Amino acid sequence: MASDTRLRSLPKRTLLTREDEVRLESEDRRAFLRKSAALAGGALAAGGVASTGRTAPLPVPPTAQEMGRPIPPAMYGMPSKYEAHVARRRTDVLVNRQNWSDWSMTPLQHQYGIITPNGLIYERHHAGTPDIDPKSHKLVIHGMVRQPLVFSMADLMRYPTVSRFYFLECSGNGLTDWLKPASTTVQQTHGLLSGAQWTGIPVSWLLDEVGVQPGAKWLAFEGADGSNHTRSMPIEKVLDDCLLVYASNGEMLRPENGYPLRLLVPGWEGNVSVKWLRRIKVGDQPWHFRSETARYTDPMPQGKWRQFSFEMECKSVITRPSGGMKLGAPGWYEIQGLAWSGNGRITAVDVTLDGGRNWQEATLDQPVLDKCLSEFRFRWNWNGSPAVIASRAVDSTGYVQPTVADLQKTRAIVGFVQHHNAVQPWSVAANGEVKNAIPG
Amino acid sequence: MASDTRLRSLPKRTLLTREDEVRLESEDRRAFLRKSAALAGGALAAGGVASTGRTAPLPVPPTAQEMGRPIPPAMYGMPSKYEAHVARRRTDVLVNRQNWSDWSMTPLQHQYGIITPNGLIYERHHAGTPDIDPKSHKLVIHGMVRQPLVFSMADLMRYPTVSRFYFLECSGNGLTDWLKPASTTVQQTHGLLSGAQWTGIPVSWLLDEVGVQPGAKWLAFEGADGSNHTRSMPIEKVLDDCLLVYASNGEMLRPENGYPLRLLVPGWEGNVSVKWLRRIKVGDQPWHFRSETARYTDPMPQGKWRQFSFEMECKSVITRPSGGMKLGAPGWYEIQGLAWSGNGRITAVDVTLDGGRNWQEATLDQPVLDKCLSEFRFRWNWNGSPAVIASRAVDSTGYVQPTVADLQKTRAIVGFVQHHNAVQPWSVAANGEVKNAIPG
Repeated sequence: MASDTRLRSLPKRTLLTREDEVRLESEDRRAFLRKSAALAGGALAAGGVASTGRTAPLPVPPTAQEMGRPIPPAMYGMPSKYEAHVARRRTDVLVNRQNWSDWSMTPLQHQYGIITPNGLIYERHHAGTPDIDPKSHKLVIHGMVRQPLVFSMADLMRYPTVSRFYFLECSGNGLTDWLKPASTTVQQTHGLLSGAQWTGIPVSWLLDEVGVQPGAKWLAFEGADGSNHTRSMPIEKVLDDCLLVYASNGEMLRPENGYPLRLLVPGWEGNVSVKWLRRIKVGDQPWHFRSETARYTDPMPQGKWRQFSFEMECKSVITRPSGGMKLGAPGWYEIQGLAWSGNGRITAVDVTLDGGRNWQEATLDQPVLDKCLSEFRFRWNWNGSPAVIASRAVDSTGYVQPTVADLQKTRAIVGFVQHHNAVQPWSVAANGEVKNAIPG
Repeated sequence: MASDTRLRSLPKRTLLTREDEVRLESEDRRAFLRKSAALAGGALAAGGVASTGRTAPLPVPPTAQEMGRPIPPAMYGMPSKYEAHVARRRTDVLVNRQNWSDWSMTPLQHQYGIITPNGLIYERHHAGTPDIDPKSHKLVIHGMVRQPLVFSMADLMRYPTVSRFYFLECSGNGLTDWLKPASTTVQQTHGLLSGAQWTGIPVSWLLDEVGVQPGAKWLAFEGADGSNHTRSMPIEKVLDDCLLVYASNGEMLRPENGYPLRLLVPGWEGNVSVKWLRRIKVGDQPWHFRSETARYTDPMPQGKWRQFSFEMECKSVITRPSGGMKLGAPGWYEIQGLAWSGNGRITAVDVTLDGGRNWQEATLDQPVLDKCLSEFRFRWNWNGSPAVIASRAVDSTGYVQPTVADLQKTRAIVGFVQHHNAVQPWSVAANGEVKNAIPG
């Protein structure tokens, strides 16, 4: 974005008074050599409230007048205490009867860029988070192979690896907001979505080690968690780009994200990226596990249910401003959001300010990568009238993100929907309040 | 890297016994419907030690026989307890007389990919870490401007932003390892280096707001920490690509990395990316602050000291295997490392296995970005003989990373060196021990 777009009238900022200007010059001459808190305090008192409309003086802050916190010999840094509200949260719409099968969602309204910090990557589990010692963890590959093999984590970590940026999204992301707005914030509507750089071993390299037999068509991936979560995967996808991942964003996986080993299936629904991976079995047909019959199927017209609907199709959402926020005075705002597609790269994101009648193209931050979150931006001069804003993404296959009305033509109208990739509108009221405006 | 590179003989892995194969089939039939810990335990006992040389049975792990840990309503995830050794650490070579001015280093031997997790981004401070409330933090821009302005964090966060991947490196990275090997690990030799996606506002946009006066040539950036750390920066660089950053890797900056606001100067020595930023002053010449005379200058021949040596030149280092590690049996290993340049993109990394006599080109992971960490990989079939391994990077300007001998031709031979970007050799002994082999 070039700097020739004038920002002069954009957000509010305070004019510096002449008194402060004089004080800062005085601070320049003295404080750069030896700092005098007494002088600064005096100048501050003299500042008072000035004539150019400023409401706050510009004191030398306490932190610049004292020593800070020393660092310990070894340290893993944590967010500021002023950011304690930024947390992964359970849904506030669906309340589980018990909490062994549950999920917690990424606070996308507070995410900047395409990386979700490891502490905020969304997670879904069916029987709680296991606590696995990597020294005792084993992966077995067996079934239709020439030589079944067992790998320790030390074995696996000696293998060559690759690092790749991919998004991860639960097939149930947005399922509560289908027939009417149910959730308040974008964390609750879209927070089963995260982005990371993943490091691991292409599964194809390990299948080469065990030697897949002719006729093999499907693989089962089984987790070492209490639910024994297991999924069938077609071998073409596994050989194409699936990874056995042990690290995300530079460090070993967090326990709730599969430590010490998970499958990572780029662009496909999150539950097939089996966490706490202990077993790969090679076969010639899908197994129809519990997570392929009782869960992770889609209601379709005529009472049918769609099975093995793996791809997460092209989608986008405005994260700022979004539900639960409140705009200040009319004027310039930057609309910011995320777009992604399980089928390729994002090629364009359009933004509407009038509920879908007109669309204008947003700017995409670089790099734009395959099956990865992309960040988009659009400058909006809000005139203070009610508005309905939304984004619509297009991917490299030419697919255009649908509306809810589009989706309802092909899906059964029940109380929830899996693979809900429809456009998400937010309404902005005259008083600045932003609300979920998903249509029924 | 194509899968046609045969991995069959690469790391060790264990053959699966026929007994385990039978047991897994039995587990298939029963456990996928209703899991029986008793059955699994029995099958395990029957497994015993088998005939194909395997030393450990393949039990159903305890985690798959019990419920895991439930999640709390709000959560910021942390690393596994088995990863407690992965921490940012103070140097063990230079011991400070007091710990107000100090630094702690990124554990690069444990970093996977080009993202350093926020909890492990290296940090350097001169007066401890201040604890700043973003609600009271202010930034002033004044000096040779048409209209001095004061910005609150709320003002700044309403501005348009960009997100960019950049490395950050301290000019003193490696200063202890110059005339002889002083440090053991790559954390100690190179750990004043991190990589992140940074989000913030181009400084040029804010300078457009205040209106820079003709004749302005330098800007001062001042921190709100106890040391009042302040640096002079030429205006060309500031207008080119400098950012006022409030987020890294998807979330607000950590306190020790400048929360709530820092300057980010892509490709230049870390100390000019002033943290806890409270003031920008526009002027027509550099100010020669304490951090430009007593600190951050380079000893040169004839007793001279070089000032304002900003660029971090092209550099690379092998992170695995690296000092303090021990290889296992001879065979295939993947040499992995990082390369970066403050002057552009990495175009090639070469690896030597014989102390610099012969070099072979390594593979670069995608994406390779400007002024950003790049990850390189090289497969090495270690024959068990002593070896000296090292990497050498080339950037898009054609600059080739120098050796220590090259650097010594242009720098003064004193006990330490700033801007030490020389090739880092690691020696591998016949017993597999890896040691720092930096030449004097």
